[in-house]
Amino acid sequence: MTESSKEISVQNATAANTGGHTFCMLNSLGLDSLTTENTENVLNEALSAIVEHFGADHGYIVLKDDKGELVNVASTYRGEQGEAQMTASDAVIDKVMETSAAVLVENAMQNPEFVGDVSFQRFNIGTAICVAIKTSQSTAGVIYIDSTGSKWDNSHLEVLDFIGRYMGLALSEVRWQKKQRENKRLIATGTAALQLSHSVKNMLQMIGGAAEIVDFGLRTNQIHRVKKSWEILKPNLERMRKYTLEMLDYSKDRPIKPANCNFNRII
Amino acid sequence: MTESSKEISVQNATAANTGGHTFCMLNSLGLDSLTTENTENVLNEALSAIVEHFGADHGYIVLKDDKGELVNVASTYRGEQGEAQMTASDAVIDKVMETSAAVLVENAMQNPEFVGDVSFQRFNIGTAICVAIKTSQSTAGVIYIDSTGSKWDNSHLEVLDFIGRYMGLALSEVRWQKKQRENKRLIATGTAALQLSHSVKNMLQMIGGAAEIVDFGLRTNQIHRVKKSWEILKPNLERMRKYTLEMLDYSKDRPIKPANCNFNRII
Repeated sequence: MTESSKEISVQNATAANTGGHTFCMLNSLGLDSLTTENTENVLNEALSAIVEHFGADHGYIVLKDDKGELVNVASTYRGEQGEAQMTASDAVIDKVMETSAAVLVENAMQNPEFVGDVSFQRFNIGTAICVAIKTSQSTAGVIYIDSTGSKWDNSHLEVLDFIGRYMGLALSEVRWQKKQRENKRLIATGTAALQLSHSVKNMLQMIGGAAEIVDFGLRTNQIHRVKKSWEILKPNLERMRKYTLEMLDYSKDRPIKPANCNFNRII
Repeated sequence: MTESSKEISVQNATAANTGGHTFCMLNSLGLDSLTTENTENVLNEALSAIVEHFGADHGYIVLKDDKGELVNVASTYRGEQGEAQMTASDAVIDKVMETSAAVLVENAMQNPEFVGDVSFQRFNIGTAICVAIKTSQSTAGVIYIDSTGSKWDNSHLEVLDFIGRYMGLALSEVRWQKKQRENKRLIATGTAALQLSHSVKNMLQMIGGAAEIVDFGLRTNQIHRVKKSWEILKPNLERMRKYTLEMLDYSKDRPIKPANCNFNRII
């Protein structure tokens, strides 16, 4: 490390103290406290902080649902538009979903790439930024902000792109947790099958051996041999039946069915 | 939103452009590209960026291993100490692992809370910051930086704490992916068991019914009934055996055993 870079790094340390607006915004997003239950709330609050930080007029978070369709999960408007129409450009969102690369649209109304999209004209949009919410698996959705003014450049794109990746990590965590809950019984079944593997093979061995002698005895009319082997076969069949049914039963998911009850009687 | 807060938010947007030192450091950490394979490299590079940003003298990333023991996975020294001894205070690390709350030690050598720890005296440490690498499941480890000077306050603590949570999310993602790979076969086994549930129950039904008649026939010496039921029992036993063995076989994990081979012969 050179002397001059050391100098900068010491200044950097102080920057956190004085000029860390971007950091304050990032730290206020609260994305690491995301859960399945609070997702909508946290994303809406995060979007508000983003819209305020960037001075955007509108902001949207759009996520792919289970069927792969894009759903607007959070919207924020500045000023009094209230229940305004969605101002975001579908063409821009589709492009980001496809390439998962961040897009900055400057001079939106004159932009040749999105000239076919009427949103910019209709809502008098000057600049828009759209970034992918990336998880390691796929592009989960986008964050989209726009403004009637023209104030953003690549440095803003970089910040929002970082937020997109950060939000992707946070969403991914929530989805893994959900998946883990869903897979819990399946994993337990598989594990049980593996652990019981040895004793099940023993049962099968005994059943197979005894069945062969029963078969042979029946064909040659040696009923005493049939009876003897049947005494081995029968209890093992029962064990096998019990084991298999229990395993199937265990792996089944039982949805909770809440119902009214007399609580006093239960305790 | 008031007029003055609008004013600030517009300035914030520009801060990313000019004074965003903290953001540049965060963005350079590359934590969202973490994988099982590159973990050590990425963490070491991230730690270098952190140490440089904070102007720290030493930095460490300590993670719990599979057995729950703390392992130093990344170390960075500024200057020429090279292979210096670990300067981090065990007492501080233990406290953060226990409470998972970030700790700033000011006036380290005089600090009454850690007076029993000789590291500060021995290495002439002025300030230290230690934050938890938090995942939703647990505290995975800590990031620790120290300096012989005395330059950090709560604003630095806040930035490093954010990095700790961010790193926690990134590590968690990698661990989920690893877990998913490990569980893949178990989940497939469980799913197969569930899907086959109906036909397995049919087999068991037939086996159970036929076995009862075989049993009755043997006890009452009605060998023709035994023979008839045995014809039903036998093929179902075989199907059951095959099904169970296949399921067990499928769920077993087979480690890859690489060996030399004549590639030309294979193709």
